[in-house]
Amino acid sequence: MGSDHMSTFAPSGVITLTTDFGHCDPFVGIMKGRILSIFPAAIIVDLTHEIPPFGIAAASFWLARAYAYFPIGTVHIAVVDPGVGTARNILAMEMDSHLFLAPDNGLLTGFPRKEHRVHTIDFDRLRLHGFPPPSATFHGRDIFAPVAGKLAAGVWHAHELGPASPLLPLGARGGSDEGLGIKGEVVVVDHFGNLLTNIERAAIERLRDPRVDIAGHSLRLCRTYGDALPGEVVALVNSFDVLEIAVVQGSAARNLNLGCGTPVQIGAKPAG
Amino acid sequence: MGSDHMSTFAPSGVITLTTDFGHCDPFVGIMKGRILSIFPAAIIVDLTHEIPPFGIAAASFWLARAYAYFPIGTVHIAVVDPGVGTARNILAMEMDSHLFLAPDNGLLTGFPRKEHRVHTIDFDRLRLHGFPPPSATFHGRDIFAPVAGKLAAGVWHAHELGPASPLLPLGARGGSDEGLGIKGEVVVVDHFGNLLTNIERAAIERLRDPRVDIAGHSLRLCRTYGDALPGEVVALVNSFDVLEIAVVQGSAARNLNLGCGTPVQIGAKPAG
Amino acid sequence: MGSDHMSTFAPSGVITLTTDFGHCDPFVGIMKGRILSIFPAAIIVDLTHEIPPFGIAAASFWLARAYAYFPIGTVHIAVVDPGVGTARNILAMEMDSHLFLAPDNGLLTGFPRKEHRVHTIDFDRLRLHGFPPPSATFHGRDIFAPVAGKLAAGVWHAHELGPASPLLPLGARGGSDEGLGIKGEVVVVDHFGNLLTNIERAAIERLRDPRVDIAGHSLRLCRTYGDALPGEVVALVNSFDVLEIAVVQGSAARNLNLGCGTPVQIGAKPAG
Repeated sequence: MGSDHMSTFAPSGVITLTTDFGHCDPFVGIMKGRILSIFPAAIIVDLTHEIPPFGIAAASFWLARAYAYFPIGTVHIAVVDPGVGTARNILAMEMDSHLFLAPDNGLLTGFPRKEHRVHTIDFDRLRLHGFPPPSATFHGRDIFAPVAGKLAAGVWHAHELGPASPLLPLGARGGSDEGLGIKGEVVVVDHFGNLLTNIERAAIERLRDPRVDIAGHSLRLCRTYGDALPGEVVALVNSFDVLEIAVVQGSAARNLNLGCGTPVQIGAKPAG
Repeated sequence: MGSDHMSTFAPSGVITLTTDFGHCDPFVGIMKGRILSIFPAAIIVDLTHEIPPFGIAAASFWLARAYAYFPIGTVHIAVVDPGVGTARNILAMEMDSHLFLAPDNGLLTGFPRKEHRVHTIDFDRLRLHGFPPPSATFHGRDIFAPVAGKLAAGVWHAHELGPASPLLPLGARGGSDEGLGIKGEVVVVDHFGNLLTNIERAAIERLRDPRVDIAGHSLRLCRTYGDALPGEVVALVNSFDVLEIAVVQGSAARNLNLGCGTPVQIGAKPAG
Repeated sequence: MGSDHMSTFAPSGVITLTTDFGHCDPFVGIMKGRILSIFPAAIIVDLTHEIPPFGIAAASFWLARAYAYFPIGTVHIAVVDPGVGTARNILAMEMDSHLFLAPDNGLLTGFPRKEHRVHTIDFDRLRLHGFPPPSATFHGRDIFAPVAGKLAAGVWHAHELGPASPLLPLGARGGSDEGLGIKGEVVVVDHFGNLLTNIERAAIERLRDPRVDIAGHSLRLCRTYGDALPGEVVALVNSFDVLEIAVVQGSAARNLNLGCGTPVQIGAKPAG
């Protein structure tokens, strides 16, 4: 296919994978086999395969916060796809000189509002380029992996995959600002049992002496886990610039018996 | 070692790993270290390390259905090896321009009946080529990894590893055809709780209007998960060409309380 | 930075990762993105990410027993770091022509007593070389990964990272010798439920007809799992040269209901 004069995407050869496939089955390995069959020099990195089954919001949360740590020119595949085999589309989005491939189910809409261009993959066009008809249930193997291989190899360009299309917003995301406080909720529970929320650093920094309220606990913000004693419940702005509730050297999810969807509120006077 | 004029195997540099080692311990990482020490340009892909402990049949099922998605010239290591350290042999099988290394415990016998050549690894010959005596309990590190490295680097060839030997059949495998119906069983439960059976697409396509019977449920075949409503139990021929029973956006294993060994039957009139 | 005339470290391009980050979140993937952004040719191998949260001793145990299986010139990152964001130092240790990066919390002190050189990373120096200020909670991403990338690329050398510093011993480690017996404990439970102890092969080989006592069981040493029947409890010196208690084709941890910290004793007459 030809070149795209508007694109700033120059492939680095790196491909990341984000799925809800888990680690028990060879599904991820098979995707890598397909990629290497098409692009033997691919450098493939697992972002995570333990997105909760069909957890579109969690996949969107992590991909949006992780992609920028990869080299410019990386192709990011995200397959959390309850609609696989139905008429749902697959999108290719270019943003920040990175490329993202994901089902058109809202996964790509949790990203920062940067300039981006989106194309809908035209399955007939793939057929013309020699792709066999995909299975009805494993597009990770049959579409995402080989298309990513072609894009990462620089053989195909995103605008050639199909027509440009708008990215439908997923509705209000992130903590909402009401009066002087901020309301949000827990959106991810990580491996350590830390509760990650959708309240961003920027919103918090507008507040003076903020206090975090969650499930009857009223917490002062601290800077890092080591600022409190083992077993203490702490609130901090974490390394992904969102509010996190943690138990020092313990599990907030288990100790407080809380999970995704738990409401969180920050009350404070506005700063300065 | 010399060249083999009958072989069609030309190494791609790719090595896959299938084990029951899990992800908790550094066993898999250590195997990769050994491979890279011998063949620094190796491209190593994890197929799965969550084969149930000593689950030879599951390893055989997945490897047989996954290998062809990798580049021709790939070396596939499979270590599910309850007999490690005893007198059991290790086999190298060449098939379809791929190479497979596995213990001689039936793991390589669940494959399609294609032309293949098998060699038994001669441990004395390894010693002559400078291998230290293997430990009694970790042949993945001491034999499989370095031998695969030599094969993937093109330094050694399978026929040089030891004498040719027959591959003993594992007995009847796959769903058996009785009268107009097909009997089989669940052989793998995947990460989503889907129940994968040993009934192949080809056998099902001979039937007209097939119905699937499992644990008191009588199911019509559908094409993909999205063809039914969330929570419904469906039967479909999956992307690995075997019959699968699933709960849409749920877990068939949990919802139906079923697992490996559950009998499955398909009843129908023959097609055409 | 300049060269170090005392160093024998010549980078192989390989970097290993040992953490307690688990596989649920993209933390490990993000570290790899950072490494590849700095050193695109890096070969990154996961050693394990399932060290128990804050399990410094387990990380030390595995890294010390695994590193030598990697190519000379490998950089090993170990991030088990309850003190992240506090004033704790990060160390770079050169030993056996390998490099190790870890928090200064004892992780590097479980190693064999070989000649080694240790430097404390000077965070101000990193700043001078263009590193942005690190977050308070994710030094794996902000310090370990990019520093390892620079070292593995051969752009930086360990002695340039900061001042030489002694490695404080962690106190008595390993099984202690009392009279004619050896006392130790279980330090790791592996994926199979095997109980790995801190009693080394060398200590055992000094004994004649050793018997292993653990939780009321008195066991003779055997050579490999296959030397006993399925379900039997066995003691053996494993492939990492430490005493291990196992249940053949079963889980010693579950069957015997034992875990880390369980005392183990070997009684015997001295050999020869």
